Amino acid sequence: MQFELTSDFLLKLREAISARNGAFVVEQFKELYPPDIAEIFNELEIEEAKYVYKQLDEQIAADVLVELDDDVREEFLASLTSKEIAEQFIDNMDSDDAADVIAELPDDVQDEVLSHMEDSEQASDIVELLNYNENTAGGLMATELIRVHVNSNAIECVREIREQADNVETIYAIYVVDDDEKLVGLLPLKKLIVSSTRSKVAEIYDPKIISVKTNTDAEEVANVMDKYNLVVLPVVDALGRLVGRITIDDIVDVRREEETEDVQRMAGMEALDEPYMNMSIWGILKKRAGWLVILFLGETLTATAMGFFENEIAKVVILSLFVPLIISSGGNTGSQASTLVIRALALGEITIRNWLTIIKREIKVGFILGLILGLIGFLRVVVWSQFTSIYGPHWMEIGLTVGTSLIGVVLWGNIIGSLFPLILKRFGFDPAVSSAPFVATLVDITGLIIYFSVASLLLGSVL
Amino acid sequence: MQFELTSDFLLKLREAISARNGAFVVEQFKELYPPDIAEIFNELEIEEAKYVYKQLDEQIAADVLVELDDDVREEFLASLTSKEIAEQFIDNMDSDDAADVIAELPDDVQDEVLSHMEDSEQASDIVELLNYNENTAGGLMATELIRVHVNSNAIECVREIREQADNVETIYAIYVVDDDEKLVGLLPLKKLIVSSTRSKVAEIYDPKIISVKTNTDAEEVANVMDKYNLVVLPVVDALGRLVGRITIDDIVDVRREEETEDVQRMAGMEALDEPYMNMSIWGILKKRAGWLVILFLGETLTATAMGFFENEIAKVVILSLFVPLIISSGGNTGSQASTLVIRALALGEITIRNWLTIIKREIKVGFILGLILGLIGFLRVVVWSQFTSIYGPHWMEIGLTVGTSLIGVVLWGNIIGSLFPLILKRFGFDPAVSSAPFVATLVDITGLIIYFSVASLLLGSVL
Repeated sequence: MQFELTSDFLLKLREAISARNGAFVVEQFKELYPPDIAEIFNELEIEEAKYVYKQLDEQIAADVLVELDDDVREEFLASLTSKEIAEQFIDNMDSDDAADVIAELPDDVQDEVLSHMEDSEQASDIVELLNYNENTAGGLMATELIRVHVNSNAIECVREIREQADNVETIYAIYVVDDDEKLVGLLPLKKLIVSSTRSKVAEIYDPKIISVKTNTDAEEVANVMDKYNLVVLPVVDALGRLVGRITIDDIVDVRREEETEDVQRMAGMEALDEPYMNMSIWGILKKRAGWLVILFLGETLTATAMGFFENEIAKVVILSLFVPLIISSGGNTGSQASTLVIRALALGEITIRNWLTIIKREIKVGFILGLILGLIGFLRVVVWSQFTSIYGPHWMEIGLTVGTSLIGVVLWGNIIGSLFPLILKRFGFDPAVSSAPFVATLVDITGLIIYFSVASLLLGSVL
Repeated sequence: MQFELTSDFLLKLREAISARNGAFVVEQFKELYPPDIAEIFNELEIEEAKYVYKQLDEQIAADVLVELDDDVREEFLASLTSKEIAEQFIDNMDSDDAADVIAELPDDVQDEVLSHMEDSEQASDIVELLNYNENTAGGLMATELIRVHVNSNAIECVREIREQADNVETIYAIYVVDDDEKLVGLLPLKKLIVSSTRSKVAEIYDPKIISVKTNTDAEEVANVMDKYNLVVLPVVDALGRLVGRITIDDIVDVRREEETEDVQRMAGMEALDEPYMNMSIWGILKKRAGWLVILFLGETLTATAMGFFENEIAKVVILSLFVPLIISSGGNTGSQASTLVIRALALGEITIRNWLTIIKREIKVGFILGLILGLIGFLRVVVWSQFTSIYGPHWMEIGLTVGTSLIGVVLWGNIIGSLFPLILKRFGFDPAVSSAPFVATLVDITGLIIYFSVASLLLGSVL
């Protein structure tokens, strides 16, 4: 039922294009939707794509353009004149998509395209949309919507819808405004259909309506739509006048960016502001170097910690061999714990009030994980010692030191990993900053102290 | 404009409840939406919540129940009789929400609730929905929808909508079916409104329609809705008959689960199947221990690697102090790189075909990051040596060893971190498995070899 792009299909299409077989092309694309066609276009050469575009219905061609990968669209538009862009594409787009596409063009081309648009009202709408910050409701909204006056009646609503029908692709709701263009409520399409044609809007509309301001942050817009299960959300200006609407597909990208930021923070770096491939090397360096240096400076304390045990290491060099194993086990366990807690906090599955429950269970989990790794570590030393003399005469003490330290370090890593995001949250910081590398650094220092203290205890006679 | 729950509000509400001041409660809740009320309920005691419920409109009370936290809902429902649950709540819910709520009840209560429902057709719909796997389209869909026969006309459509209006909260589209109840197309509400009342459905409906089968995987459903920007998606059975519809709010949870799985895999563990708080300690252990043991076994190779340099360490014990610093720097850099690449792959910003571009830029980035950390490491040793004698007479050689190794280890960590997810993807594995701990383990082993090799070279005369 669904379209899947095969190399076979692509081959046949390319043959048809080079043979200028328009009928075949039209036939192939008839059953497809714009996102499918965009998928195909991303694979074609510019000249091929241009030929196919000419065979498509103008509305569909415009929808396809919106769905293209950024770099393909850029290349494609660069091959067209401003007049072609305006008349064949922008004129057929919703204002929010049109503004996004125009914003990607070079400054001088932007003005040219706008001047070539047929619908000057649409052009001035777009100019206004271009002024909004892209991370606000104003930057997300489209201006196409159905508005009726609160004093009008059902018949006038239907007439208004008929007039606007060409501009508004899908009608989600009818907005009700007063004399000052202020948003006063909502008339669900269902209500309009089931009401008598003589009904007054004032009698059937719903005055309870959720809206956002043009300067509302995009993340806040997404939260509101999520919380109230909204498919469309009206946008008002500072005076409460209806200026646009945001549909749910527009906030998919907002959510995706947020998730990306979280994931990047959790990897011990600042979140990128742009897609990975669009970032310059210096841009990426700026986002990464800061945290790396902080983690590095923290980690230099491990050298200090180990310095205290220099004499012990000098006497039993073998102890140093297990340092990476011990500290990485604590770090890995801590990174698991912090990720579980950060994610559960983000999803609202837990709150900081649950901290005691969380710590109690993570102490149990950490202890058992420590037992498992400790046992494997102990066995590794003991079994090896039967075949080599690398661990010397005190292999049993060394095995016990490794095993016992692992229990302590893993348990400790688990406690720090689960507690730290809660502490950050408690003091108003983003828990995602309690990244795996951050927790690992904390655990490395304390892990070394645990390890060498256990060694001093168990290997006391030797040291 | 938006509701925010304050402790002041909660205090006043509780006072009103204990004074049995119903009028105050009704007044407070009049302007609120079900998700707001649910937020308040999550904070109330059961008896308080029960009192408030009685003051609410039945439809709103049912909507609030759906929005409650799982544990609060469970506790609340346990305090009601089956008859109350059926008549006050389930009868007022959409079939998909009703099925979800009933599925959470104990088995014997489920049957009782179903038998108490007023609308027996709705009850049998729910029984059917309960049979579907919750991770399929059948498990996500609701059965309330507007369907018209392809041979009917516009007037009959409006009549059908009026009849169904009570059952269907929001009408997104009208589905067109044939004699066999097979889905043949879609009639947008806009089209119905702008068409003459004498129009035949056959003349105005759109036969191009995207649908999924009841057994389509939930993740696939989410992908289809995303790709085609759909707000609602019809579901058909194996014979192509229309059986339900999925709305976009139902797939928000599907997406969130997917993201959670990814994040958890990236932290070096298996994805949890359930919310963190619902997992037993043993359940969590099972998800975490496997990967921890694998990472641990991999990390034991660090002891082997260091074993080769035992003599060098014995001669210059000071070398061992920098082991944690060196390997963690490689690990941190690698974890940043792998996260960037994994996320960019997930978002479709890059594909494996871009591998050469990615490696080239990550070599540059890694080299510069290495230079920065290497310089800091070198200075740390040199500056410290002016104040203490801890680094002995060869502090300059040791400083150079640490600095040079850092450049190599950081560069290497960056290459491994960015390359490994691409390799996993190339061979059909989930790139998220190339987690930060996994990359760190790989880098630890090679990092040690780089460090001690550099040491052998620069400290050759001393060793």
